[in-house]
Amino acid sequence: MLKVLKFGGTSVGTLERIQNVAKIIKNIRDDGHDIIAVVSAMSGETNKLIEYANTFSSNPSNKEMDMLLSSGERVTSALLSIALNEDGYKTTSMSGREVGIFTTNEHTNARIESIDTSNMQESIAQGNIIIVAGFQGVSVNTSRVTTLGRGGSDLSAVAIAGAIAADICEIYTDVDGIYTTDPRIEPKAKKMDKISYDEMLELASLGAKVLQNRSVEMAKKLNVNLVSRSSFTPEVEGTLITKEENIMEAPIVSGIALDKNQIRVGLYKVSDKPGIAASIFQTLANSNINVDMIVQTIAVDGKADLDFTISTGDLEKTQKAMETFKDDVEKIDYNEAVCKVSIVGVGMKSHTGVASKAFLAMANENINIRIISTSEIKISMIIDEKYAELAVRSLHDVYELDK
Amino acid sequence: MLKVLKFGGTSVGTLERIQNVAKIIKNIRDDGHDIIAVVSAMSGETNKLIEYANTFSSNPSNKEMDMLLSSGERVTSALLSIALNEDGYKTTSMSGREVGIFTTNEHTNARIESIDTSNMQESIAQGNIIIVAGFQGVSVNTSRVTTLGRGGSDLSAVAIAGAIAADICEIYTDVDGIYTTDPRIEPKAKKMDKISYDEMLELASLGAKVLQNRSVEMAKKLNVNLVSRSSFTPEVEGTLITKEENIMEAPIVSGIALDKNQIRVGLYKVSDKPGIAASIFQTLANSNINVDMIVQTIAVDGKADLDFTISTGDLEKTQKAMETFKDDVEKIDYNEAVCKVSIVGVGMKSHTGVASKAFLAMANENINIRIISTSEIKISMIIDEKYAELAVRSLHDVYELDK
Repeated sequence: MLKVLKFGGTSVGTLERIQNVAKIIKNIRDDGHDIIAVVSAMSGETNKLIEYANTFSSNPSNKEMDMLLSSGERVTSALLSIALNEDGYKTTSMSGREVGIFTTNEHTNARIESIDTSNMQESIAQGNIIIVAGFQGVSVNTSRVTTLGRGGSDLSAVAIAGAIAADICEIYTDVDGIYTTDPRIEPKAKKMDKISYDEMLELASLGAKVLQNRSVEMAKKLNVNLVSRSSFTPEVEGTLITKEENIMEAPIVSGIALDKNQIRVGLYKVSDKPGIAASIFQTLANSNINVDMIVQTIAVDGKADLDFTISTGDLEKTQKAMETFKDDVEKIDYNEAVCKVSIVGVGMKSHTGVASKAFLAMANENINIRIISTSEIKISMIIDEKYAELAVRSLHDVYELDK
Repeated sequence: MLKVLKFGGTSVGTLERIQNVAKIIKNIRDDGHDIIAVVSAMSGETNKLIEYANTFSSNPSNKEMDMLLSSGERVTSALLSIALNEDGYKTTSMSGREVGIFTTNEHTNARIESIDTSNMQESIAQGNIIIVAGFQGVSVNTSRVTTLGRGGSDLSAVAIAGAIAADICEIYTDVDGIYTTDPRIEPKAKKMDKISYDEMLELASLGAKVLQNRSVEMAKKLNVNLVSRSSFTPEVEGTLITKEENIMEAPIVSGIALDKNQIRVGLYKVSDKPGIAASIFQTLANSNINVDMIVQTIAVDGKADLDFTISTGDLEKTQKAMETFKDDVEKIDYNEAVCKVSIVGVGMKSHTGVASKAFLAMANENINIRIISTSEIKISMIIDEKYAELAVRSLHDVYELDK
């Protein structure tokens, strides 16, 4: 098999941990596999360099930041390569340029345009384990080093796996897979063996520390079999994220996600001017504010109440954007003490009664549901934040996710 | 003018010092000059990375060491560039690849084969100050990053200055120029304004901390006007190292060099087999031992005594090589308590009596001269080490170098 492995900053955070990663690679190699290992900078290094840059400028040029930050991954790739050589394993480190990752010119946040795999293929044919400096490529226009933004090393790994048609792409972190819910909230949470791309995307809050949505989306697009597993317990099989067809018997509900990072915005008695709601949401979109859930209730006097949710980070921007409409509504309030609980599962598509089970569970705990929204594979509810953990535990129980 | 400036590890050793280097560059820019600044890694960084590599392997691959070590200069170039941007100066950092330095494939000790200056020229035409990551290039065969070995950043600077026909190449260190002798020995030592390449090469021990012979040789070959000056006292003019013709009135003697790193090897009563001396020196050459000064004295019985000097570091190798000849000589001794004092000056070529003045000075101090060797621009003497400083001071005095 051709395996792409990716080791994040924590997994290569110290020299001992790099040695540990070398051991994982050696074991896989000894099992007869070809390997492309993508590495991040040693944890702390990138922040140190950013700090350095910030002592000179609060707004350093993106082009120079890429030159600066791309060095960390180069260091890790060379060190890991040296560690493997010492035990007689043939390796070569490769920069983003050598790997053939061509990107757009948007420094610090470049998008991958294409990957020329010929260099990697030649090197694998020569019997090398390839150690790739992740997070980086070169601009197709200027041939200058670029970086891929947050989660960039994961993206390098997934894109390489897709381009070279690897059998699997294993993302190693300090977490051994994706759980049915956050185990810190519900100790009975179980690690899933398999989950579909779409479920993973909807369960983002469960995987946020482990997998960026951007990488999952790319894996889905390129049909890359992704595995989330831990470099600290490599003997534990992780969670496979794959296409729905590969999951024979999907459970109706796969997991429960919790997002406390929500604010409920209430607009009371919105004037009945035509198009006012459209105008409000257009204004929010123009300010780059992501509106999540929306509910509108029409009162007897013809005036509507409008409820929607935004992320905590967008509060100020939203307050500013709403200034425009202060004469069109009787009152606006912002409630930070809410959270979003989501039930996710591809099985919902073909099963009924999933939602009513959730509502009943909430009712049994006397939890008021403020807003509900449903999609094909997800039911989300906005509830008071004080009930967050209780709601997660009840739902985990009701859908028997510990079984 | 087009100026190439080079700032070593100490000059960019902290963020404050990088800021200081930025100030030097801004002043030169404000005077209307075009600038290519070549930088080293922040002092300590390279050693840290070597230490890291050595925890994994006592003999890491040179190819990987180049990937590892070339990152330090990239970091400095980006940081310096960011510091200059902040004050509105247009800059671009460039890696060895972007600068167009093509080298041989000998990793960690590559030789520069050619420099394609087109990228630099275009960037200067666009009004940029170029900040070059020194010490590195790319292999002309494999396109892989290479490093240039000891003093590599100086070499980058000199080679770039030669290739792009810069008006001057200023090497900034923590020393403000080349002195007539080591000021720690003779406080009356004076900084020289100008010195020829050949004198500089012969005075290597005075300049060793400041300029590697390899760089001076390249400057001579490419006819680059080299200046040694300090980034800590940039207001002080340094020493210009240039071709002899550019120095109107060269003093007869320019400087006094001292080398304590010498061992005198004495072979007593060498058998009068034909070709035995040739055989001895051939054996030493085969063992890569640099023999400096040689004296042979023929005794009445036809047997010769042979004296020569080697560097301290070559003692063991020499002892081993001399085993072969133990039956051909009555006695071999190794005297570490000697040193070499050299008088250097291009003026010697056309002046007589320089040597006799030196011998007289030694005689006046009751210093025995063990070995003498002379070249066109240098007189070297081996004396007992205990007289080293006394000899330097007397000679400095005799040739009136403090005037």
